[in-house]
Amino acid sequence: MHRHDHARTERIGMPEAVLCDAKNVEQVRNIAIELAAAANSPCLFTRLTLEQFEALPADIVHRFDVDPLSRTAFLDGTLPTRPGRVAVVAAGTSDAPVAAEVVRTLQFSGVSGELIVDVGVAGIWRLQERLDDIAAADIVIAVAGMDAALVSVLGGLIGRPIVAVPTSVGYGVAAGGSTALNSSLASCAQGVTVVNIDNGFGAACAAVRMLSLLDAPSQRDDR
Amino acid sequence: MHRHDHARTERIGMPEAVLCDAKNVEQVRNIAIELAAAANSPCLFTRLTLEQFEALPADIVHRFDVDPLSRTAFLDGTLPTRPGRVAVVAAGTSDAPVAAEVVRTLQFSGVSGELIVDVGVAGIWRLQERLDDIAAADIVIAVAGMDAALVSVLGGLIGRPIVAVPTSVGYGVAAGGSTALNSSLASCAQGVTVVNIDNGFGAACAAVRMLSLLDAPSQRDDR
Amino acid sequence: MHRHDHARTERIGMPEAVLCDAKNVEQVRNIAIELAAAANSPCLFTRLTLEQFEALPADIVHRFDVDPLSRTAFLDGTLPTRPGRVAVVAAGTSDAPVAAEVVRTLQFSGVSGELIVDVGVAGIWRLQERLDDIAAADIVIAVAGMDAALVSVLGGLIGRPIVAVPTSVGYGVAAGGSTALNSSLASCAQGVTVVNIDNGFGAACAAVRMLSLLDAPSQRDDR
Amino acid sequence: MHRHDHARTERIGMPEAVLCDAKNVEQVRNIAIELAAAANSPCLFTRLTLEQFEALPADIVHRFDVDPLSRTAFLDGTLPTRPGRVAVVAAGTSDAPVAAEVVRTLQFSGVSGELIVDVGVAGIWRLQERLDDIAAADIVIAVAGMDAALVSVLGGLIGRPIVAVPTSVGYGVAAGGSTALNSSLASCAQGVTVVNIDNGFGAACAAVRMLSLLDAPSQRDDR
Amino acid sequence: MHRHDHARTERIGMPEAVLCDAKNVEQVRNIAIELAAAANSPCLFTRLTLEQFEALPADIVHRFDVDPLSRTAFLDGTLPTRPGRVAVVAAGTSDAPVAAEVVRTLQFSGVSGELIVDVGVAGIWRLQERLDDIAAADIVIAVAGMDAALVSVLGGLIGRPIVAVPTSVGYGVAAGGSTALNSSLASCAQGVTVVNIDNGFGAACAAVRMLSLLDAPSQRDDR
Amino acid sequence: MHRHDHARTERIGMPEAVLCDAKNVEQVRNIAIELAAAANSPCLFTRLTLEQFEALPADIVHRFDVDPLSRTAFLDGTLPTRPGRVAVVAAGTSDAPVAAEVVRTLQFSGVSGELIVDVGVAGIWRLQERLDDIAAADIVIAVAGMDAALVSVLGGLIGRPIVAVPTSVGYGVAAGGSTALNSSLASCAQGVTVVNIDNGFGAACAAVRMLSLLDAPSQRDDR
Amino acid sequence: MHRHDHARTERIGMPEAVLCDAKNVEQVRNIAIELAAAANSPCLFTRLTLEQFEALPADIVHRFDVDPLSRTAFLDGTLPTRPGRVAVVAAGTSDAPVAAEVVRTLQFSGVSGELIVDVGVAGIWRLQERLDDIAAADIVIAVAGMDAALVSVLGGLIGRPIVAVPTSVGYGVAAGGSTALNSSLASCAQGVTVVNIDNGFGAACAAVRMLSLLDAPSQRDDR
Amino acid sequence: MHRHDHARTERIGMPEAVLCDAKNVEQVRNIAIELAAAANSPCLFTRLTLEQFEALPADIVHRFDVDPLSRTAFLDGTLPTRPGRVAVVAAGTSDAPVAAEVVRTLQFSGVSGELIVDVGVAGIWRLQERLDDIAAADIVIAVAGMDAALVSVLGGLIGRPIVAVPTSVGYGVAAGGSTALNSSLASCAQGVTVVNIDNGFGAACAAVRMLSLLDAPSQRDDR
Repeated sequence: MHRHDHARTERIGMPEAVLCDAKNVEQVRNIAIELAAAANSPCLFTRLTLEQFEALPADIVHRFDVDPLSRTAFLDGTLPTRPGRVAVVAAGTSDAPVAAEVVRTLQFSGVSGELIVDVGVAGIWRLQERLDDIAAADIVIAVAGMDAALVSVLGGLIGRPIVAVPTSVGYGVAAGGSTALNSSLASCAQGVTVVNIDNGFGAACAAVRMLSLLDAPSQRDDR
Repeated sequence: MHRHDHARTERIGMPEAVLCDAKNVEQVRNIAIELAAAANSPCLFTRLTLEQFEALPADIVHRFDVDPLSRTAFLDGTLPTRPGRVAVVAAGTSDAPVAAEVVRTLQFSGVSGELIVDVGVAGIWRLQERLDDIAAADIVIAVAGMDAALVSVLGGLIGRPIVAVPTSVGYGVAAGGSTALNSSLASCAQGVTVVNIDNGFGAACAAVRMLSLLDAPSQRDDR
Repeated sequence: MHRHDHARTERIGMPEAVLCDAKNVEQVRNIAIELAAAANSPCLFTRLTLEQFEALPADIVHRFDVDPLSRTAFLDGTLPTRPGRVAVVAAGTSDAPVAAEVVRTLQFSGVSGELIVDVGVAGIWRLQERLDDIAAADIVIAVAGMDAALVSVLGGLIGRPIVAVPTSVGYGVAAGGSTALNSSLASCAQGVTVVNIDNGFGAACAAVRMLSLLDAPSQRDDR
Repeated sequence: MHRHDHARTERIGMPEAVLCDAKNVEQVRNIAIELAAAANSPCLFTRLTLEQFEALPADIVHRFDVDPLSRTAFLDGTLPTRPGRVAVVAAGTSDAPVAAEVVRTLQFSGVSGELIVDVGVAGIWRLQERLDDIAAADIVIAVAGMDAALVSVLGGLIGRPIVAVPTSVGYGVAAGGSTALNSSLASCAQGVTVVNIDNGFGAACAAVRMLSLLDAPSQRDDR
Repeated sequence: MHRHDHARTERIGMPEAVLCDAKNVEQVRNIAIELAAAANSPCLFTRLTLEQFEALPADIVHRFDVDPLSRTAFLDGTLPTRPGRVAVVAAGTSDAPVAAEVVRTLQFSGVSGELIVDVGVAGIWRLQERLDDIAAADIVIAVAGMDAALVSVLGGLIGRPIVAVPTSVGYGVAAGGSTALNSSLASCAQGVTVVNIDNGFGAACAAVRMLSLLDAPSQRDDR
Repeated sequence: MHRHDHARTERIGMPEAVLCDAKNVEQVRNIAIELAAAANSPCLFTRLTLEQFEALPADIVHRFDVDPLSRTAFLDGTLPTRPGRVAVVAAGTSDAPVAAEVVRTLQFSGVSGELIVDVGVAGIWRLQERLDDIAAADIVIAVAGMDAALVSVLGGLIGRPIVAVPTSVGYGVAAGGSTALNSSLASCAQGVTVVNIDNGFGAACAAVRMLSLLDAPSQRDDR
Repeated sequence: MHRHDHARTERIGMPEAVLCDAKNVEQVRNIAIELAAAANSPCLFTRLTLEQFEALPADIVHRFDVDPLSRTAFLDGTLPTRPGRVAVVAAGTSDAPVAAEVVRTLQFSGVSGELIVDVGVAGIWRLQERLDDIAAADIVIAVAGMDAALVSVLGGLIGRPIVAVPTSVGYGVAAGGSTALNSSLASCAQGVTVVNIDNGFGAACAAVRMLSLLDAPSQRDDR
Repeated sequence: MHRHDHARTERIGMPEAVLCDAKNVEQVRNIAIELAAAANSPCLFTRLTLEQFEALPADIVHRFDVDPLSRTAFLDGTLPTRPGRVAVVAAGTSDAPVAAEVVRTLQFSGVSGELIVDVGVAGIWRLQERLDDIAAADIVIAVAGMDAALVSVLGGLIGRPIVAVPTSVGYGVAAGGSTALNSSLASCAQGVTVVNIDNGFGAACAAVRMLSLLDAPSQRDDR
């Protein structure tokens, strides 16, 4: 039996999630049945394949809200809304699936996320047109593959927290995303942080962690 | 002539810093003279070698506050104090120089930072003894080399933002820090973010970005 | 003709095994026919594909005990039972196939193996609930992908032999298993040993080698 | 203050050790003073440089037993002797420092270790001359750089536990030890386990873990 | 139009060959038609897929001698026989396709090649049984994946030229063949040479180059 | 005796140069003596160490024009001036030695080069201030380490040829320059070309090749 | 909605292009519809799959000029012809698709490109036969996989700009193209520049940038 | 005590050699004393440092023939001369130390070796001038760093055995020699074989193995 970590949301406020990537169809189906039966709280499924989704039992499938582009599903809705706004900035159309995973994970977590796409630095005027929108957010999540130059340019223009999500988009030295990853880590802009390649889920969770700073002003006052 | 970016602190609130690592003694000396003459605002020097420090002109050297372990120096003091508290958690004594760079950069930025060392997971009871201290901070910066298991353990116990700083400590597959880096990026704990290997300065800057969320409640209200 | 190493079990006590991974359907079929005809002793097939299994001749297929999850098959039963108990600890559901290969190879070798799953360190309380079970075993085999932090945590809590099996589970820097491998090799817990990525068979064989220490007390006395 | 893990030996039976590699002279000196003052139990220093050793205070230096080849030192003797015998087999003279670290760590742990050198497979008759000695040990630790072919040859001839220690000896593709490491991990001999490159200390600790199987027959009986 | 190098065999005595791997079906078909029309001399096709073979025109297909295991085809027979004998030694069944490419390329080149399989060093007695056969050859080609320990063992026992062909067989660190390649290059046996991973064709061509030393005794006498 | 390629400048118009990096003091001295005696044409020495320079014979040293920052020397002046202007743009002070090698090689080749430094994208307003200067050049050479984001930003703003020179500046994933190299190769800006890490000489030579397009209008007309 | 960069051609003279590689069928279809409706200027599609092409709406498909080998399509013709001639030199038949992408991108950009194939250095006489043709071009683009030796040989014979396009053709160490890439970057021929693996589009764009030197003689005169 | 392999020369005809690289001064001194006392046969020392040489005892040092460039020493002369001639071809002056190791190892082995330097393909006319000399040898050893294009060019022009020795000369992607190694392995010229980076000793030993084909015509006749 799958031993799901029902305590995680309660203990550290992180969304409960099932990464379907390395699980087979039967494993995902069994976990879904078990979670649906327990009905503890909303649950997020990420990297869900079409085949895995179609194998869900008919009696519970209506409880899932599925999004094909991001390959995510919500079981029993989302978590309560919480304060804070996140700008999700993507360099190009090819980064759309990862950016969508960020937005959907934010949505599941009750956080408002705005998607801003096609603002790669090769046409930097397009980025400049959207800069005010981006600067108004509490947190910026930059989704970029290839050279990930977008991350450094944003880092030099914005003082808010910036989380880079390198994507595996590209060919040759860009294939697999290690160039985007290393470029983000070596960014000349200070204080940018990075998550694993294509890890839109993780970037959104990082934003949730950061937004917890808005939750508890009283605790902070008495220090 | 060195074209220093006096505008950066003003524009995005980041500390003004000079990375001395890849500069020769004469270059650092010239930048120091120039910055001391301009006297715009406090400035941070990182990865300063002893030789570079000793080459500073006698008439300005008293304006520098130097710390050998972290290899940092403050020119003309620090930035004003700001709200927020950061726990800097290091797995072992060998990680001390990088952890010290984090603490000193926080200090320069006006942020309170507490250092908690020798809490590696190979003796997990030592970490558990300090867990309450760590959990009380607004942000946790985890400094760890080798397997960086500390990052994942903290990530599962703490809901606040966690920034991992992989260190280059170790030999064999650990040498250079790529194992610690990849382990942090692949952490099974969700929402942990990562900076470049040995980049204590960057992790502290990331905390400064995050703490900006505490600065402007009014801006957030009117959205 | 395939020249099988019938002498190996006899000489060094290791199970006789056929790695089907890089062999084509015809090669596996021919080896199976030959071994079935020789009928020397039980034989283990690992990484057997469904297609390879279905190509076995009808007159010998009943002599095979097949397990799809672990992709293993026993020809003519198992080796005699031997003393010793092994705990097979897996971080997550995704590691199940490799963990199953460990358990099946132990079973084939006559060794008692207990599977303990879903005890990743991101929810360390789940591991702590099972710690007594794990500590009671003679040998612990830790199956973990991604950051393999489980290996280090176990290594700090348990004094028995620990064999890490890194798995290729994961995406980005975790893909292929080299992060889990390097993290295990660089573990801050002393005396942990490691086998190749996804090599559940090898970890079980290592346990068999170690359990040979229980076989021959007399030999040891007279030194 | 250094927070040493005095509990480790007691809890999991592993030797207490200080890895001096990434610590500076002052850090090692301070740890030595502190441990000497505590006088809890014998302690092992590994990868100790000459400079670090010479900086030890005069009043405690006589309590250290130092060995230059292995770069190890014992503070206040060794742990009590325990049953079991380990053969430490090294391919060539160049592997001697790592092999010496294995032998010294075994000695510190109270375990009998025999060193067998210059038995590389390029002159396989030399290995065959020593095979009976090797086969009589409880555990074999194979120390080998370059192609590490010794590991596979031993693995095919010996049924006892075999721990491979890849060394960083060599040039070109052998430099740094990753070829020896990967070759050991990919060994065609089943059940060989591996530790990090040049990690003689870890291999000896692994042997200590394995020899714990000889300690407690009664515990095993009552299962 | 394909500009085939009809001059190569004549100029340097190497077999004329078409590597079909990276060519599409139409490209291979066109080259075959062109070469068949020219009818200059026998020609070797390597890494020919079934699909490529089946697309050959009906009127020339009978002029091809095809071998599925090695994925080779001869157009218009082979080159004249020449003196010299080559032993092709393969560690395991999984290396069979590459070993077959060696043997077929030798056959095409008019050289006698003997295949000796399943002599991996994990069961070194099997290698010893065949050693006299191997030692009697003019040249030894060792085909081995994973740790390629066979290469070093042969190199220590045989004084004739040894060419190692690393294979891409295996999983984990062995996958793709770089471990076998590096292990062969770092072999502790002196004077072993190496070709690219899976390059059975190249190893056979190297043997043809070496056997040219037997062709022209008179030229050598007069120096 | 050194066999210098006196024909190269004549045949393909490239500057004659001696790369001193991998040569010992005696080798450089001998080549210098030989070239000075031949006195064919000006010659460029690159990556010249201080020790190599100081070992030049007293009777020829006055014929050398040495520049310590770029580690270059001209023997017997420079090549004739030629049309065309190159902007050499460097992200930071740390890139100065490589940028200086570009400028000096251009100067040796008779080409006008303007150095524009400290225009990294983390402070993009500094780049924008210099954009008109950069856009007025025939060719832009972008010298950048770390994330090399400067390359992509320039590539999106400038239509002239852009040659990226990645530098080995930086630490962690930036160390050695492979991140800057891969980021430049994967640039989202189209038509940027790249030379080897730290190869300022090569970038200048590439500019010389490109400027040859200005030399021969008549040749182009008659096609 | 896709935010296409209509300004790029106008601003920096680069062709407007859609990289279809990492986009799904629906994304490419939507971009095509949008661009066809805007009808601003000709547009180039690269790495277009057959499936993507077949999904284009019937009412606009006739406006596309498709080439299967290069996987390119032109929407609404090409850009106006411009002066300059480019030789596209490919080592072998396997490099044909990438060479075709170069030629098609040149054609789209209004540049004359001549394809010269099967001139690999293993048969250097074939290259010598075509040398005059190659030398007569303004720019040489060398398309080569495996060892990319063609790049260095051309670099030593030709004084015009040379752009190397490494290809991913090959197996073993050649697979993926990194050997060809690194070999081109490390070329012993000075002033060769390089683009990403398989980036025929980028090489052609680099040529367009270089040919802009022929456009504006007057601008150059008045400096 | 060092267990030297006195049997190797006798058994397989390879020269007896001591690789001094990874041995300390004392180890080399002890081996030298031991070998000098045994006085079995001439012995070759490779990668001998000046410090190691100067530590040899005064009473035996006269029996050593030392060469600083190649870092080799002969103890008690060389092996008897044997038939065959080897051309050692080096691309540049920087490859001289490795080329010298080849020539000295040949000389020690009794083989005639001719050194041909400065024939890199960037000035291919220099290679063509020497081609007849090279083609007249029995075996060609090509010593080349960076792109190693020399290997492929020779491979296309010469039908004799060719052994490539990649060198670690160069910077950026060439540093360490892996580019030269991979380029040699991926050579488009068929039948070239390769040894480890900088392994001049190994290449000469490979030639000795190949020249054994000239030793025993009678053995070959009776097959």
